Amino acid sequence: MTLDNSLKTQLMNALKAGETSLLVRLLAELSPAHVAEFILELETQNKVRVFKSLENDAQLQVLRILDEDIEYEILSTQPVSYIYALVEKMPHDKRVDLLKSFPENKRKEIMKELAQTEREDILKLSSYSEGTTGAIMTTDYAVITAEITAEQALEQLRLEAPEKETIYYAYVIDAQRRLIGTVSLRQLITADKQLKISELMSADFVSVFADEPAEKTARMLKEADLLAIPVLDRKSRITGIVTFDDAMQVIEEETSETMFQKAGIAGRSDRDKEREKDLVNSSKLLKGSIWYPIRLRMMFLFVTLAGGFLVGGVIDYFEDVLEAVLVAAVFIPVLMDMGGNVGTQSSTIFARGLALGHIDTSRIFGHIGREVSIGAIMGLALGLIGGIVAWYWQGMPNGIPEIGLAVGIGLAVVVPVATLLGFLLPYILLKLGFDHAPGADPFITTIKDFTGLGLYFYLVATLIGV
Amino acid sequence: MTLDNSLKTQLMNALKAGETSLLVRLLAELSPAHVAEFILELETQNKVRVFKSLENDAQLQVLRILDEDIEYEILSTQPVSYIYALVEKMPHDKRVDLLKSFPENKRKEIMKELAQTEREDILKLSSYSEGTTGAIMTTDYAVITAEITAEQALEQLRLEAPEKETIYYAYVIDAQRRLIGTVSLRQLITADKQLKISELMSADFVSVFADEPAEKTARMLKEADLLAIPVLDRKSRITGIVTFDDAMQVIEEETSETMFQKAGIAGRSDRDKEREKDLVNSSKLLKGSIWYPIRLRMMFLFVTLAGGFLVGGVIDYFEDVLEAVLVAAVFIPVLMDMGGNVGTQSSTIFARGLALGHIDTSRIFGHIGREVSIGAIMGLALGLIGGIVAWYWQGMPNGIPEIGLAVGIGLAVVVPVATLLGFLLPYILLKLGFDHAPGADPFITTIKDFTGLGLYFYLVATLIGV
Repeated sequence: MTLDNSLKTQLMNALKAGETSLLVRLLAELSPAHVAEFILELETQNKVRVFKSLENDAQLQVLRILDEDIEYEILSTQPVSYIYALVEKMPHDKRVDLLKSFPENKRKEIMKELAQTEREDILKLSSYSEGTTGAIMTTDYAVITAEITAEQALEQLRLEAPEKETIYYAYVIDAQRRLIGTVSLRQLITADKQLKISELMSADFVSVFADEPAEKTARMLKEADLLAIPVLDRKSRITGIVTFDDAMQVIEEETSETMFQKAGIAGRSDRDKEREKDLVNSSKLLKGSIWYPIRLRMMFLFVTLAGGFLVGGVIDYFEDVLEAVLVAAVFIPVLMDMGGNVGTQSSTIFARGLALGHIDTSRIFGHIGREVSIGAIMGLALGLIGGIVAWYWQGMPNGIPEIGLAVGIGLAVVVPVATLLGFLLPYILLKLGFDHAPGADPFITTIKDFTGLGLYFYLVATLIGV
Repeated sequence: MTLDNSLKTQLMNALKAGETSLLVRLLAELSPAHVAEFILELETQNKVRVFKSLENDAQLQVLRILDEDIEYEILSTQPVSYIYALVEKMPHDKRVDLLKSFPENKRKEIMKELAQTEREDILKLSSYSEGTTGAIMTTDYAVITAEITAEQALEQLRLEAPEKETIYYAYVIDAQRRLIGTVSLRQLITADKQLKISELMSADFVSVFADEPAEKTARMLKEADLLAIPVLDRKSRITGIVTFDDAMQVIEEETSETMFQKAGIAGRSDRDKEREKDLVNSSKLLKGSIWYPIRLRMMFLFVTLAGGFLVGGVIDYFEDVLEAVLVAAVFIPVLMDMGGNVGTQSSTIFARGLALGHIDTSRIFGHIGREVSIGAIMGLALGLIGGIVAWYWQGMPNGIPEIGLAVGIGLAVVVPVATLLGFLLPYILLKLGFDHAPGADPFITTIKDFTGLGLYFYLVATLIGV
């Protein structure tokens, strides 16, 4: 259940009346998730008041749930001493994200206050580039050695619990810090207390390298149904873990990105993203400054504008044909729309299949062949129906039946061409090192219109003999 | 790391040579995730052989990871006695999904073998309609009472662990089975052993009702950063839990659905989906029979065909204008493409914002107002540029400058109209009880083309005075 309405009213009243002690009491009864939900609805000043009315432990739990921008909104108003005391106890991945929000001088001030080991840990985590597993991992995991017993391991986890992101797995390391096995808390609890970890642990485990893509790691974690996945350096030493909540976030952001990019709402290159982590943000598209969405959308629309004029050039080229057979213009929309929608279907299937790992780029021609066969069958069906409609458009027998033939053949060709482009263009962009999705669609549109309308007018000219 | 290649070769050789004992030994060393990965690559017959070479416990763990269709592929070849022994020990939500795969008579046979309580549990879980929280929850969670101590609770969890989906939370119930609190295993482990659960538990917790939408539950679980969320009936009694892995699945499927539906790859109504759980399947779109994607894609393309002819009717209507000013045809593509791409951007932002909860349908007109303002600004910019290009198209001063004005105004109007339609049409479909996404796009296309081209030709006629 979301936060109860009457409770919310009580909280609001306590806030307005400035009754801090009542506020403290009410908040102490709430789950961190409900506090976070409540905080989101408040103005900055009240966000800060509510946050500061929480107990230390609750503050940390609420910070786990809030996004960096809200955390920054609350904490940036506070003195450095207050911030670093919190930062010290935050999950290691979250505090790196938070620190990145601060301007450089304030960040340096906070860093100066931290212990040497903490500072090194933060620098290490910050050093991974955006999009890699290292950039989403955390370093507060529990390690144990193989020669202790289940009981000893359990006791160790119990003591370390307050400062670890998860204690539901313990990672077993050798003297070189190489990962040699994993044990779950579930296994530890149910095992014979005197059993050695070496006998209990799973020596075959799923793991990833820190420099591998975060998306790949997120999908592996999801497929393997784990709560966390260990991250290794290239010497097989454990350097972090990725937890399911961060993986869920990556999968969702990646899907949103793909959708937005396909619709041309993504003005930035991969390199930009690495520098400033500016993922397209659904919330910012719908709230706040209208210049953010305009900036993101315009580049795509300029390409559309240029493409539209380019296709117009085809019509211009066939102006004499059009003059002779004016009704030919009537079927421009059906040819354009059909190619456009078929192309969108294909490029969506490609983008989704790629993201979910159903497209194997090493046998791309197999995928394209299948897609074009589908296009050919759909093209034949649509060309037949569209051709008959166009045939009868001008009324028989006094009309120009050749137009029907040109529309039919035009549709039958433009549909498989669009399926081909819908797979081939994103694939080529991918091979060229671009993110596959952005910007492919307006090029697909332009090329299939160019081909489709060009063929159509050529057929009209030839069949009618202009 | 994914499964090692040399190990895979050894496994394949053992399979081919029929060396079952070697196979058993090799498999015993593998993690369930790696076994599942290996099984996926095999033919049905070998899938079965590998599966049957696993120990009982490993079989269950591998089943947790595999999808229902693979589970069915393996188990459908086996006698009922073998299946029900496994089904009995499977997680409660997974076994319901598996049983649904079997033909009715075989399902009945298996059900007959199960104990009364298991049978009732399966019937209860099967009774929730597709898309509700009840349909994705599981019933194998751990409950405790408030008066026991942390130590006693821990001991109880230890004993129940083998048959529970998760022991990382224990749910505290009163005599009427109403949920009164939750305790995490982490809390239990770190707490003073003699502390009473009533003092340790969190009495304010996040929960959902079984009849609420599964998507909403999945998002709540994600927002609150939990491993599992308790599901209540309308009398506040606990009836199940939803775990993070099932929530992740729901979020991903929902996003895929939205993307595919927007591209018109979804022929089925919500009611169909409830009956047969036929979510659009990315893997089936890319592999297997080509008639599956053709069936899903054609309905959308028929609408496109009809829409294209309808828009053609507008051109037909203005045939005399076109005859007088033939160059007017040249700018049909730019007007159509621009409206189309802007409309796609808007409907994508709407669909994604709705899914992520950034659109509040109670204040839809605020959202639409903002979107249309964005459209107006973009329309002015694009109209200005497009108008100038069109103005110079025919060469000055001997051309027809009025065309430039008509193209400019046409673009300036069609862009905000497309933004309006991109938000309004999906919203209307939603209000009419349709899933918001499917089928909105071709209607947007048709209406904006109708408006845009109609206005454009009217302007050409008026300005030039045909």
